[in-house]
Amino acid sequence: MAPQYAPSLRSRLAPLLLILQTGFIIIAGFCCLPEFQDVNVMVILGFGFLCTFPVRYGFSGSGFNLLVAIIATQWALILNGIDSWYNTKIIRIDLKSIIKAELCAVSALISIGTVLGKTNPVQLTLIALLEVTGFVLNEWLLQTLLKVRPPNSIMLLHVFGALFGLMLTWILYRDGSKQGFEKEKYDEKSGLFSMLGVVFLWMFWPSFNSVLVDDRTRLKAVCSTYLALAVSAVTAAALAVLSSPRGKLNLIQMQSCILSGGAAVGVSVSVVQQPWEAMALGFTAAILSTLGYRYLKTHLLIAFECHDTCAVLSTHGLPGLLGWLAQLVLQIKDSDDHTVAVRFAVFHICTLFTTVSLSLSMGTLTAFLLKWKFWRPPQNKKCFDDQAFWEVFTHKSQRKKNIRNDQNYFRESH
Amino acid sequence: MAPQYAPSLRSRLAPLLLILQTGFIIIAGFCCLPEFQDVNVMVILGFGFLCTFPVRYGFSGSGFNLLVAIIATQWALILNGIDSWYNTKIIRIDLKSIIKAELCAVSALISIGTVLGKTNPVQLTLIALLEVTGFVLNEWLLQTLLKVRPPNSIMLLHVFGALFGLMLTWILYRDGSKQGFEKEKYDEKSGLFSMLGVVFLWMFWPSFNSVLVDDRTRLKAVCSTYLALAVSAVTAAALAVLSSPRGKLNLIQMQSCILSGGAAVGVSVSVVQQPWEAMALGFTAAILSTLGYRYLKTHLLIAFECHDTCAVLSTHGLPGLLGWLAQLVLQIKDSDDHTVAVRFAVFHICTLFTTVSLSLSMGTLTAFLLKWKFWRPPQNKKCFDDQAFWEVFTHKSQRKKNIRNDQNYFRESH
Amino acid sequence: MAPQYAPSLRSRLAPLLLILQTGFIIIAGFCCLPEFQDVNVMVILGFGFLCTFPVRYGFSGSGFNLLVAIIATQWALILNGIDSWYNTKIIRIDLKSIIKAELCAVSALISIGTVLGKTNPVQLTLIALLEVTGFVLNEWLLQTLLKVRPPNSIMLLHVFGALFGLMLTWILYRDGSKQGFEKEKYDEKSGLFSMLGVVFLWMFWPSFNSVLVDDRTRLKAVCSTYLALAVSAVTAAALAVLSSPRGKLNLIQMQSCILSGGAAVGVSVSVVQQPWEAMALGFTAAILSTLGYRYLKTHLLIAFECHDTCAVLSTHGLPGLLGWLAQLVLQIKDSDDHTVAVRFAVFHICTLFTTVSLSLSMGTLTAFLLKWKFWRPPQNKKCFDDQAFWEVFTHKSQRKKNIRNDQNYFRESH
Repeated sequence: MAPQYAPSLRSRLAPLLLILQTGFIIIAGFCCLPEFQDVNVMVILGFGFLCTFPVRYGFSGSGFNLLVAIIATQWALILNGIDSWYNTKIIRIDLKSIIKAELCAVSALISIGTVLGKTNPVQLTLIALLEVTGFVLNEWLLQTLLKVRPPNSIMLLHVFGALFGLMLTWILYRDGSKQGFEKEKYDEKSGLFSMLGVVFLWMFWPSFNSVLVDDRTRLKAVCSTYLALAVSAVTAAALAVLSSPRGKLNLIQMQSCILSGGAAVGVSVSVVQQPWEAMALGFTAAILSTLGYRYLKTHLLIAFECHDTCAVLSTHGLPGLLGWLAQLVLQIKDSDDHTVAVRFAVFHICTLFTTVSLSLSMGTLTAFLLKWKFWRPPQNKKCFDDQAFWEVFTHKSQRKKNIRNDQNYFRESH
Repeated sequence: MAPQYAPSLRSRLAPLLLILQTGFIIIAGFCCLPEFQDVNVMVILGFGFLCTFPVRYGFSGSGFNLLVAIIATQWALILNGIDSWYNTKIIRIDLKSIIKAELCAVSALISIGTVLGKTNPVQLTLIALLEVTGFVLNEWLLQTLLKVRPPNSIMLLHVFGALFGLMLTWILYRDGSKQGFEKEKYDEKSGLFSMLGVVFLWMFWPSFNSVLVDDRTRLKAVCSTYLALAVSAVTAAALAVLSSPRGKLNLIQMQSCILSGGAAVGVSVSVVQQPWEAMALGFTAAILSTLGYRYLKTHLLIAFECHDTCAVLSTHGLPGLLGWLAQLVLQIKDSDDHTVAVRFAVFHICTLFTTVSLSLSMGTLTAFLLKWKFWRPPQNKKCFDDQAFWEVFTHKSQRKKNIRNDQNYFRESH
Repeated sequence: MAPQYAPSLRSRLAPLLLILQTGFIIIAGFCCLPEFQDVNVMVILGFGFLCTFPVRYGFSGSGFNLLVAIIATQWALILNGIDSWYNTKIIRIDLKSIIKAELCAVSALISIGTVLGKTNPVQLTLIALLEVTGFVLNEWLLQTLLKVRPPNSIMLLHVFGALFGLMLTWILYRDGSKQGFEKEKYDEKSGLFSMLGVVFLWMFWPSFNSVLVDDRTRLKAVCSTYLALAVSAVTAAALAVLSSPRGKLNLIQMQSCILSGGAAVGVSVSVVQQPWEAMALGFTAAILSTLGYRYLKTHLLIAFECHDTCAVLSTHGLPGLLGWLAQLVLQIKDSDDHTVAVRFAVFHICTLFTTVSLSLSMGTLTAFLLKWKFWRPPQNKKCFDDQAFWEVFTHKSQRKKNIRNDQNYFRESH
């Protein structure tokens, strides 16, 4: 293979996908899956189009996200069902379990945001499989050892996904990252496509946060999320103007920070009671997220050699940690007894510690596996380039050639 | 500040947004807001992407609409709650009140359509605040003085928003408008983004019109709106071909006129009983809207120096007035007594007169406030240009410089 | 008319649309239509944006699809109501009948996919009217003669639409098709718009397939469709890489094949019981669809002079036939008696035979009608070109001229 071409994925991606898909079908054949539901618009559309902003990476951004989301959902369905399979030899799948599987897929999509553009779909698929495995393991640990309630443990997906992703991109660091990749930029139209993804995430986030909550408190969860998102959107716009030297807005920064309120409220949704609490949380999340985008992102790149494509740390990581802190503070504030407060603090710190250490170690493991040249990562100058993975633009001359070939083939085969 | 740059908004926009948002949080802190609901897709997505057609104004079109919609909704929530706050010191917010607030926000989004591209986000925010104030005042006047039922008074938002906006753009007239702004044009892709907005508005308009109607007649409202929209879409296409010298369609004209049936039925939704009435209304609305777009829009610009960016007069103004007329005619037709008919006519004319005079006077007031140079409106050649408000396109050379600066900063700070 | 311009449609399209729309209103005036419902997002948005991939044909792709969908739905509503009108002189339209009408409109949208870019909107409207007529006739024949249950006969829309369309494009073959049309290509942004359409179709296909199923089995239909779509998406990606000489993905091929599982399960939805059956069906559909796209499409063009713009044969035709076969095989497998099995086979073969022969003959009829030069088809070099039908891009110089003309007109008229 000549070095000027991106490496062919024919012998890697196709077998991987076919083996996975055959495996999933066989598992489904032996363990019954009776009920299902409409897939969440947010997972497929929102996250897919969120990642279309690199100007030459739109096909990959939307296409690979669709692929990864589907594979991760199927894998999470199977992993979440192991428990019941162990007891009854049947994986029962109802509305709740499919939604849970999609939430696990979201944690994988968050991780992938850090390495997007610098990896190939084979690596993305492996990340999705290992991330979901780690996340389900974390959930199981929290629920069995610490007796964390399922909605609370699942909502830590923002923290788990972001830290897993950061570890990945730190270890997979490429030398060219500091100078910036040639095609890592956006234009008027690719920015609008990712705006479309952001708008869909913004609109459906209240449903996302309230989906696992029981009916009694669902309306409050929707309300809190809406308020936090509204406040973080306005605050993010104000801070973007303040933090820019020439008083201008930055589209990608706004897209990252607009959504921070949703992540913060998501983690603490079970304890946010008052509207002003949700609004203050959205306000703080937008500040943290903007600071993270403007300063932390560059410092991570320069000081730690960690290149975070979609600013996952400031969109999901920091707001997620803020949500965890808010949950702790609000629970301590409500407890009048001193020993209860200390016990709450220890419980919450253990929860966070487990999540953080598992995500960091799984991320490290995955990253070292992906460093293997066998996976054929794209060269630096093919990063953020659809041409590495997609046949592009059948021009007239090519089509003529194709048709000529086909005609020859056709003549010969008859 | 050198004259070739658009004026920086750092000292205007950021404080305005932060003060507003802090105020909203404080108000929310003192007055309880318990229930909430999913935000309407139409408000955020439909109106946002409707305004992305100017080729270099997509970020602003979608971003500023999101911002204005969120601020206007929060402000309308507070204003609509003043009444109950006056009595009980608590603003109760349930599903209905949030939907009402969003409808008020729509009236502000309509007004903004007339001045889009020629104003900055500071001005847009002020317009939204004042327009919503005027609209809520109008609603209160109609409901207390004339005993108009709430759904009927709210649906006059099309008329109120359009006239308010026309007054704005008339007084804020810029000398260059007749020659056309350099960047006021669309291309293949920006036209498709606004088509996306139109399609979402088209699909969700039946829900929009029926949301305030009681359950018994909701299905009829959905049916009437669907029929009117279907007829106005087909008629608009036919008239676009007829009115074009070379027999071609015009995308922006079609986008304006396709939706006219929805506005007309919206205003008269309480009295439209038969399907053919809705269809005839859609037919007439499309004719009026097309005539308005083709002839009235240019005459307004030349004779009255009034530049209407999004053709708000033909999309919302004329169909809204048609809907008002249809409501009057259908009610008179149904009343067998002569005096009852006269009373209906007087009542409807008073309603319209109040709405028109309040919207025109509030529009005048707002426009004179916005003429103040303190708000730093964009120069003529920065109109319809994202570069005036957005950091654009981190190119390689710039990024290097940024990183160098950051590295220096990093070295110094350690 | 100078030969370098595309022929004007002023004297064709406008009268056609106006006559149709007036006719629909008159029919609605005489026959009551009381109930209605939200139009399906899939029909308007999914199919509309699916066809925006040709780089200079986005306005037409989305605009004409909206137009055709609306006209076909209105026409199908009337045709489906003939039966009840015959008995009671009233066309009752409830939720189910409007959804049925939309499904009929989908069969027309499928047919149109074969000739998109090579026909004008007058021809598209005629195709929609005749296709829907044929489809409703086929449905009536199947239901009265063969006693096929309504959901099963309607879901044959994939087969009917695809074969109708293939017949059309075969007879309407243009000499230049083999060399490829100058503008029949896509770019990064137009590919993303059609990806948006595909993602919406993918997300809403489970609802599409389950909408006519009774409540008891609806959840199973949703589940089967989701599984089949998930499997066909992953398989399509794997096969795209395998079948490409350089191991790359092809966007348009993936878009066609991702959806094949939905069509296959749609046709056989009443007999698919087990999850692995749905998954295996999705797997086979993706294989068939990929083979169809890669090899059959080119051979059809070269050997049979049949140019299939949107690869309708591989997206809807082959998966539809596979679904029919699966239905037959699964029913025979379940029947323990030999004679029952034979009777099932004969019944299913008769059903398919009726559908195929009616769609081919109606397609032939329609195609010969459309060959008439009276309809003014676009010239070869205006194929896939928005400029043939749309006023494009008001540039500064043109606008000045327009305004000058308008000023003259204004002076003269006063």
